[in-house]
Amino acid sequence: VQIAILLYDRLAALDAVGPYEVLSRLPGADVVTVGERTGPVRSDTGTLGLIVDHRIDDITTPDVVVVPGGPGKTTHLADGPVPRWLRAVDTTTTWTTSVCTGSLILAAAGLLTGRRATTYWRSIDELAAHGAIPVRERVVTDGKYVTGAGVSAGIDMALTLVAHIAGDAMAQRLQLTIEYDPQPPFDAGSPATAPADVLTALTT
Amino acid sequence: VQIAILLYDRLAALDAVGPYEVLSRLPGADVVTVGERTGPVRSDTGTLGLIVDHRIDDITTPDVVVVPGGPGKTTHLADGPVPRWLRAVDTTTTWTTSVCTGSLILAAAGLLTGRRATTYWRSIDELAAHGAIPVRERVVTDGKYVTGAGVSAGIDMALTLVAHIAGDAMAQRLQLTIEYDPQPPFDAGSPATAPADVLTALTT
Repeated sequence: VQIAILLYDRLAALDAVGPYEVLSRLPGADVVTVGERTGPVRSDTGTLGLIVDHRIDDITTPDVVVVPGGPGKTTHLADGPVPRWLRAVDTTTTWTTSVCTGSLILAAAGLLTGRRATTYWRSIDELAAHGAIPVRERVVTDGKYVTGAGVSAGIDMALTLVAHIAGDAMAQRLQLTIEYDPQPPFDAGSPATAPADVLTALTT
Repeated sequence: VQIAILLYDRLAALDAVGPYEVLSRLPGADVVTVGERTGPVRSDTGTLGLIVDHRIDDITTPDVVVVPGGPGKTTHLADGPVPRWLRAVDTTTTWTTSVCTGSLILAAAGLLTGRRATTYWRSIDELAAHGAIPVRERVVTDGKYVTGAGVSAGIDMALTLVAHIAGDAMAQRLQLTIEYDPQPPFDAGSPATAPADVLTALTT
């Protein structure tokens, strides 16, 4: 299976690298990074460079597409090369997936219309504006569309995707391979659990 | 605070990008990627390129150092430019940290002698061979040395580090920013919890 991970300027790097770390270890998977141009893109903070190995125009029939989010998503909400590519490859993908605000790109491209999907906690209302049915869950599967919540949720999304593709035992094997036994030092990762003052600091 | 994240060929990308995602959002932090040479390095699977922005020789007094792991660590267990740089900068760091088998690099460089530390679950015995006291915990802090377990543990390590540097409220704020509310679809991320056949498949 060919798995194309989209990279673009001002993405949230973990959105892409979390799924990469899981999916690149799936036996038989051919993971490729794709973007409008080959060469470096910079993350949203500007301090990390990632390399695009393939032009989107050269990857025409990926089995799986992964669309990360981040501030740079805005560029790809209007029609352009990336939404056009997503619509084209989606006609033959087995799975079309996203992390964080990557689902807004998919939705704006018209691929999530009437479908249940999730996104970054701060952007959940925008999903509806683009025609999707927003769901506040960590990972949402609707048909062949698998969307993850914010940033770090790409790991959970990718393990769910592996279970869909290759079964639970393989997903468990990859989970153990990346020692994904999360033990956050605080219970503050969701607006539902974060201390009120922490949530207020981010939303006002 | 200047935070130097070491990159090298055949690293596990998430080892570096997990902490990057947290630490690059710490107000006042100046995150820099460092390596023997500037330019691209490839991840352990070969399918992801990351960019080194600074030569280690040019970053001489970082406040924090983050050392990721991965198969490429082997190159840096013998003495050479990276261990020499680590020993030099460690004399002035506030925090010296690692993820996964990055702790083997620190230990082989002589920086964890007699100190409690952790590493990737498959490599825990190697830590002792390099003079550290291996501890099977997700994140271990001993003095200014903070080590994380395998691959995905870099996120937990970085949040713990932020709590040390800037307090619990800031760590919680960054946790919410990256929506780190992990919900693994399986309980297989540790050799203690993974199904027996999954563990056997990886260790035989």
